[in-house]
Amino acid sequence: MSSTVSRVGAAYDHIESVDRPEIWIDLRPRAEVEAEARTIDERVAAGEQLPLAGHLFAAKGNIDVHGLPTTAGCPAYAYTPEADAPVVARLRAAGALVLGTTNLDQFATGLVGTRSPHGAVRNAVDPTRISGGSSSGSAVAVALGIVDFALGTDTAGSGRVPAAFNGIVGIKPTRGLVPTTGVVPACASLDCVTVFARTLPEAEQALSFMASPPARDLPALPQRAPGPWRVAIPSPGQLGELDEGWSEAYETAVTQLRAAGADIRTLDLSAFTEAAAMLYEGAFVAERYTAVGAFIDKAMADGTPGLDPTVAGIITRARDLPAHRLFADYDHLATLRTRALTELADADALLLPTTPGHPTLAEVAADPLATNARLGRFTNSTNLFDLAAISVPSGKVNGLPFGVMLIGPAFTEDRLGRIARELEPDTHIAVVGAHLTGQPLNPQLLSLGARFERATTTAPVYRLHALSTTPPKPGLVHVGEGGAEIEAEVWRLPAEGLGRLLAALPRPMTLGSVELADGTSTPGFLCEPTALTNAEDITQYRGWRSYLNRG
Amino acid sequence: MSSTVSRVGAAYDHIESVDRPEIWIDLRPRAEVEAEARTIDERVAAGEQLPLAGHLFAAKGNIDVHGLPTTAGCPAYAYTPEADAPVVARLRAAGALVLGTTNLDQFATGLVGTRSPHGAVRNAVDPTRISGGSSSGSAVAVALGIVDFALGTDTAGSGRVPAAFNGIVGIKPTRGLVPTTGVVPACASLDCVTVFARTLPEAEQALSFMASPPARDLPALPQRAPGPWRVAIPSPGQLGELDEGWSEAYETAVTQLRAAGADIRTLDLSAFTEAAAMLYEGAFVAERYTAVGAFIDKAMADGTPGLDPTVAGIITRARDLPAHRLFADYDHLATLRTRALTELADADALLLPTTPGHPTLAEVAADPLATNARLGRFTNSTNLFDLAAISVPSGKVNGLPFGVMLIGPAFTEDRLGRIARELEPDTHIAVVGAHLTGQPLNPQLLSLGARFERATTTAPVYRLHALSTTPPKPGLVHVGEGGAEIEAEVWRLPAEGLGRLLAALPRPMTLGSVELADGTSTPGFLCEPTALTNAEDITQYRGWRSYLNRG
Repeated sequence: MSSTVSRVGAAYDHIESVDRPEIWIDLRPRAEVEAEARTIDERVAAGEQLPLAGHLFAAKGNIDVHGLPTTAGCPAYAYTPEADAPVVARLRAAGALVLGTTNLDQFATGLVGTRSPHGAVRNAVDPTRISGGSSSGSAVAVALGIVDFALGTDTAGSGRVPAAFNGIVGIKPTRGLVPTTGVVPACASLDCVTVFARTLPEAEQALSFMASPPARDLPALPQRAPGPWRVAIPSPGQLGELDEGWSEAYETAVTQLRAAGADIRTLDLSAFTEAAAMLYEGAFVAERYTAVGAFIDKAMADGTPGLDPTVAGIITRARDLPAHRLFADYDHLATLRTRALTELADADALLLPTTPGHPTLAEVAADPLATNARLGRFTNSTNLFDLAAISVPSGKVNGLPFGVMLIGPAFTEDRLGRIARELEPDTHIAVVGAHLTGQPLNPQLLSLGARFERATTTAPVYRLHALSTTPPKPGLVHVGEGGAEIEAEVWRLPAEGLGRLLAALPRPMTLGSVELADGTSTPGFLCEPTALTNAEDITQYRGWRSYLNRG
Repeated sequence: MSSTVSRVGAAYDHIESVDRPEIWIDLRPRAEVEAEARTIDERVAAGEQLPLAGHLFAAKGNIDVHGLPTTAGCPAYAYTPEADAPVVARLRAAGALVLGTTNLDQFATGLVGTRSPHGAVRNAVDPTRISGGSSSGSAVAVALGIVDFALGTDTAGSGRVPAAFNGIVGIKPTRGLVPTTGVVPACASLDCVTVFARTLPEAEQALSFMASPPARDLPALPQRAPGPWRVAIPSPGQLGELDEGWSEAYETAVTQLRAAGADIRTLDLSAFTEAAAMLYEGAFVAERYTAVGAFIDKAMADGTPGLDPTVAGIITRARDLPAHRLFADYDHLATLRTRALTELADADALLLPTTPGHPTLAEVAADPLATNARLGRFTNSTNLFDLAAISVPSGKVNGLPFGVMLIGPAFTEDRLGRIARELEPDTHIAVVGAHLTGQPLNPQLLSLGARFERATTTAPVYRLHALSTTPPKPGLVHVGEGGAEIEAEVWRLPAEGLGRLLAALPRPMTLGSVELADGTSTPGFLCEPTALTNAEDITQYRGWRSYLNRG
């Protein structure tokens, strides 16, 4: 990994080039961040263990970052925190570097990313579409590659909806797993701090530092019986109306899981969608008034600028919701939760589209409440039921990212991540030398999550050379005429594993297209031309292992 | 134990003689109950295991009893349950027999026992005083000896306040330990079904059948380190104003526990009393509107008779409490609960007077709200904090029962009972024969909870005879002149143990006053005069053991 200083420089250049000022509420001054980066690099050079050194992140603007105001997207609400929120402090203690605070739907009230006096956050892929929210700036900063990961929050779906819309991963951990101290409450009893990243391992690594140490009384998960993942999907027709092409995209994800060996079964989704509707239609929304209602009432009376009118309307309308209705809602929710957990009991996870569709900025502007309400159909009930969830990219529809969500019982984040890996587009890679089974670099493949697919040979168009590398490796060279079939293995590698393989690839090795004996081509190991100078031609052995065993 | 039929007959005679019609809402017809009693006796005679056969009980009028209307103290609200509430069904399945449903503060809203169209329930000991409530009829039915135990409910203190006022035991188990299905909710999230009895063992035996089987995930109690009971009392001054003589009565209980070896320490009571005030002054009371508010609104609009005006006022005023305030109250409660549990962490139990005082019926009538509010000072916070509690008699003040309460963490009912036993007025008993240490009936003493106090002799005024009983026993006879000092042991016996000893005493043995060598007198074993016919005078041996060992 390159130095923190160089990564910071690249990030600020990137911020300038993307021209998305609405991502940030407060971006730290470049010089200040570069100075902090130098300190991190010096500490690493001095031998200090900083597992997240070199990782850059952003924090949603409702999370305390020492040195920046906490605004929750409302300038008049701003306060200066005396310290980092514990979740930020934990990441910084591990060496991660925070660039600033990001835009959000004001007071984390919305799933759209447009309800902010700092401007609507445009989608990372299609700027005419919404980013999703409320963790809008954080998701887009990650999707555009500005930061490695970013913090969001999630009450109704704010840590998942923008992940799906921007083609990234969003983990919404179980309530209480990550402290919410130093976070402006939306619904204090439901809020979770979440993490966005472009890959599952990056998100999971960050979460491992964000989470509180296991409490003595953390409930032990029931052991699951050995066997394939049991993935539940809704009974036919229960997803309701989806955007064009989304039903097919969802079916593709289901098919992919089935092909990976998952045991797909149906459940009754009605308890989930019924509870989802209660989040804003019932009395639970009054908790938002408890958090910031008195502030908004006063700000409206004083004519304070910078209030988002949609958000202010939602919260002030909650002022008069009666407590007796809240008790009734809790009663009803308990019944729905029992139904939902019963439905989930026979499955390791529930697979759903993260949202039913992806509106444009114009569509949201035309009908701010209805478009927003539709977006939460699948996400709203997760925290009410005290479940864990993860949103991962699952292909594209009409060029736009499509995301699916895996929902599981509390504290099953790890399990959901393992199931989600089956949804990642795998790639194949052909190896002919030190990465072959039993050879010195084969463990590297395994550590990247690779699985052996088949033994084969190349098409008869290659020559093989013994390179003077450490450890010794062969160089495969495409010659066409005069070539031979060379022993090869094809491995299946998760997409993000390929990226890490490439990032760690030492000169003079390269990855390129390799023709196989069956006429197909697959990415595989080749080498730079200069490596062949003085390299022995060992084609006659028809493979690296035969050459090593030549006696 | 006498037959169920004879006990039922005695109970109905007793009901007639005490002339307290306000105890009952619906008393089952005597003939019907006698028929059921006959069936129970027949089943026992046929060898069926019915551990509660012969035990009579009453159920508070907000608990479903098949065959009787459930009224919650409001005739217009009455419905006919299709089955016993599970708690009633469990007791009946064990052989207990229910006589009827008892009066209560309407909708279990009150701690006084006066808020009922069926009349104010008069105290069992002093009819000018209140019974306490809301489980008024149940407590008085037990205190007067009509039933062996009775069911109450407890949200604010309804299962403890009337226990204290009527000189009986009231156990308020942990929330959820006893099912509340088939019980008219007061505050559904706080309500507990409770049990009253004249002795701890009777109450604990009933509770053992009422409680749900231990769930797989019932939290294991932290093991307490060996050592004396650690009993917390409030810091000086924190009890606030008590009735005349009550402070001294409380001190007596503390002294008694200390004398029994308990380690007395102080804690800060303020979190407990602050939370107690929130129960009616805050938004929690809205849960009562959720339960019966719509019914009361309609009944008032229709001019339906039988509404208690105080209760109706409390519940309808809760209609407009806002949900946002409830969320704020829950937040505040969480803080208070953390403080309270921290204070409790170093103690096995908190000892408090059950109430601060005992008003007359006239005082309550003069100021129904303020007198009631004062009564809950020590009980109101228990269910808000999810704790277990037990109220036990602790002497009398000015001839009226005084009760103290032991409060402990959830699921510590057993532990609280063991500590409460130290508060029971022990009695001493002198034994001279088969109950002496090492003799055949000594295990009976031990099973009654007796502890050896000292070895001594009688005053020199007794003669000893060998009776022709099985097992062989001596007969101690007071003669005055011509007597001798006879070997004796003094044992300390819990009050209720003495009752059971007497109940099990076979002819010709009797219990009477025995003069000891030190000039004191204590109850001890004597015998009927006719037993002496043909009985050998063995006074010369100076004791039963010497006689047995005469060689």
